[in-house]
Amino acid sequence: MIQKEISSAVIERLPRYYRYLDELLEEGVERISSAELSRRMSVTASQIRQDLNHFGGFGQQGYGYNVQSLYNEIGKILGLDRAQNMVIVGGGRLGQALANYVRFEKRGFRVIGIFDRNPNLVGMWVRQCQIQYVGQLADFLKSHEVEIAALTIPRDEAEEVARLLVDNGIRAIWNFAHVDLNLLFPEDIVIENVHLSESLMRLSCKLNRERWQADG
Amino acid sequence: MIQKEISSAVIERLPRYYRYLDELLEEGVERISSAELSRRMSVTASQIRQDLNHFGGFGQQGYGYNVQSLYNEIGKILGLDRAQNMVIVGGGRLGQALANYVRFEKRGFRVIGIFDRNPNLVGMWVRQCQIQYVGQLADFLKSHEVEIAALTIPRDEAEEVARLLVDNGIRAIWNFAHVDLNLLFPEDIVIENVHLSESLMRLSCKLNRERWQADG
Repeated sequence: MIQKEISSAVIERLPRYYRYLDELLEEGVERISSAELSRRMSVTASQIRQDLNHFGGFGQQGYGYNVQSLYNEIGKILGLDRAQNMVIVGGGRLGQALANYVRFEKRGFRVIGIFDRNPNLVGMWVRQCQIQYVGQLADFLKSHEVEIAALTIPRDEAEEVARLLVDNGIRAIWNFAHVDLNLLFPEDIVIENVHLSESLMRLSCKLNRERWQADG
Repeated sequence: MIQKEISSAVIERLPRYYRYLDELLEEGVERISSAELSRRMSVTASQIRQDLNHFGGFGQQGYGYNVQSLYNEIGKILGLDRAQNMVIVGGGRLGQALANYVRFEKRGFRVIGIFDRNPNLVGMWVRQCQIQYVGQLADFLKSHEVEIAALTIPRDEAEEVARLLVDNGIRAIWNFAHVDLNLLFPEDIVIENVHLSESLMRLSCKLNRERWQADG
């Protein structure tokens, strides 16, 4: 199978290709050359050819890529060709923001449960979901088919909740808590850490670097 | 100046070092060896020594790093040694979540204004800030010292708002809209893109890869 050979570096880049292909489809573009895609995405054309080479003979010399085929094929690799259920643990503003993200639904991700321990949040409706008490989480996971969980809770609760999730069948954790959960679980549990404060610090670092360069 | 020589790859890693050093300080740890830090962070000790080498003679053979000194020094590089004002454009749940993030305040980031075009949000209080109409944004930027803006608005509005921000003195944009703003501005405008749906797709991709491997 082709998919097995795709490197982590390519996987990192695939969602961005997918986003650009989606935009091209919206614009009604049927075919695109690696040169044109290169210009749009600000990536070298040879990088693009090398990355998209994994998806077989879609790029024909002189004809470019068939946008729809490439979009479908990358979608399959990303697991977007089927609906995927998701729970969100942490019903605060960030959890609510994720539950409200229409774009996720478009990609096949369905939020089927939101959990919190705060009684002021329990019972609140967020789109089609009512926030449930976190004590009900284990039972919910046992009675529903769901492999993906988003964690939007504070750091000191994250490890315990993550273990409960994994013990009850969750295979992939989208982690917003400030702890590197990937260090705690075996490799077959998939973790994607989103550390927002680190992202803001990188921005700040680059801003300050600009300042030093301006001074120098 | 040492700082000018720090590569982008090291900058990417600095916030994570900072987070671990912060945890060590909370635990009351005064000195740490590269071997122990390596174990905690799951990074090779040689990588750590190479990265932290940029910060002068803090790591002494046999003594390890002085945690507080290293924390302070990296904090300076990250621009966290001074208060930095920030505005948020987009007062929906994600914008509110960012405004509520206590951790940012601890790092010196102060949200001094939140803006939205939705009349149902204008006037709402989010901690110490009242959401203002986006039409007041330009005047606000002219009369306040602020270089950082977070953008939590839909893709089709992002480019126009980003140009308005830059025209009125914003130097760094923390972008959550699904568009690569860095391709639109000169290099002296610092952009950090956070594409949440791409992050979720990467998680899904890895989850599906696990499935293929299990089948194979």
